[in-house]
Amino acid sequence: MTSDEDIPTSHFDVKAIGLMHCELKTREATPKNYTESLFTGRLEILPQYRQALLGIEEGQTIVALFWLHEARRDILQVHPRGDTSRPLTGVFATRSPVRPNPIAISELTVLKREDTVLTVLGVDVIDGTPLIDLKKKV
Amino acid sequence: MTSDEDIPTSHFDVKAIGLMHCELKTREATPKNYTESLFTGRLEILPQYRQALLGIEEGQTIVALFWLHEARRDILQVHPRGDTSRPLTGVFATRSPVRPNPIAISELTVLKREDTVLTVLGVDVIDGTPLIDLKKKV
Repeated sequence: MTSDEDIPTSHFDVKAIGLMHCELKTREATPKNYTESLFTGRLEILPQYRQALLGIEEGQTIVALFWLHEARRDILQVHPRGDTSRPLTGVFATRSPVRPNPIAISELTVLKREDTVLTVLGVDVIDGTPLIDLKKKV
Repeated sequence: MTSDEDIPTSHFDVKAIGLMHCELKTREATPKNYTESLFTGRLEILPQYRQALLGIEEGQTIVALFWLHEARRDILQVHPRGDTSRPLTGVFATRSPVRPNPIAISELTVLKREDTVLTVLGVDVIDGTPLIDLKKKV
């Protein structure tokens, strides 16, 4: 059986690379998934990462990873989508924000790029959520 | 302009929830993407997260996030796929393992589940890579 001790470094340091600015102020007002969102937001990348944006252009769909700073990390099972008529399910079998490492994956369309600020469509995180990575869509 | 100071907590603690065991021992031998991999591996989830696996079953495709513990974090531009004939591109516009937070997204097919050990197809990380999250595919 693997234990924590078998993983040489079992904790890692993740740093914010940017921040979402949007009109979504509460979790209740926020779509549960990017596939259900027509909200736009301003994704502000920290200036020290400007060079890492070379190649991101208007019209692209990009993959964004967020750190859900308000999500609980100690809950292992949930009713999917908060629907108590659905059976308890392990968080690893859901898209719940609740999970040991509260990382969310969104696919966002770049509507506009102004230097290190991207206006994006498909926002499903609240205002002020830290961004931790951007990737090309496969 | 947003600065680090505007993000109340700009560093976060990520913990390993498991570990990949596979035959891929070097980065050179490892497929660049799960879409190009026919390798299988044993994804061992730490026993304290057993409850979070409820609902993960054989035959499903799951989304796995890995912490690429060998990847450099200080490089902001790369030649895509290491092909120097291609122009330097910002890492946020690529799937390069090199990036400020070296998190990889793989989509893996569950071939077998034995308690907290998943045998998966599509492995594109080296043996010993820490797992940090599992999600349902959208």
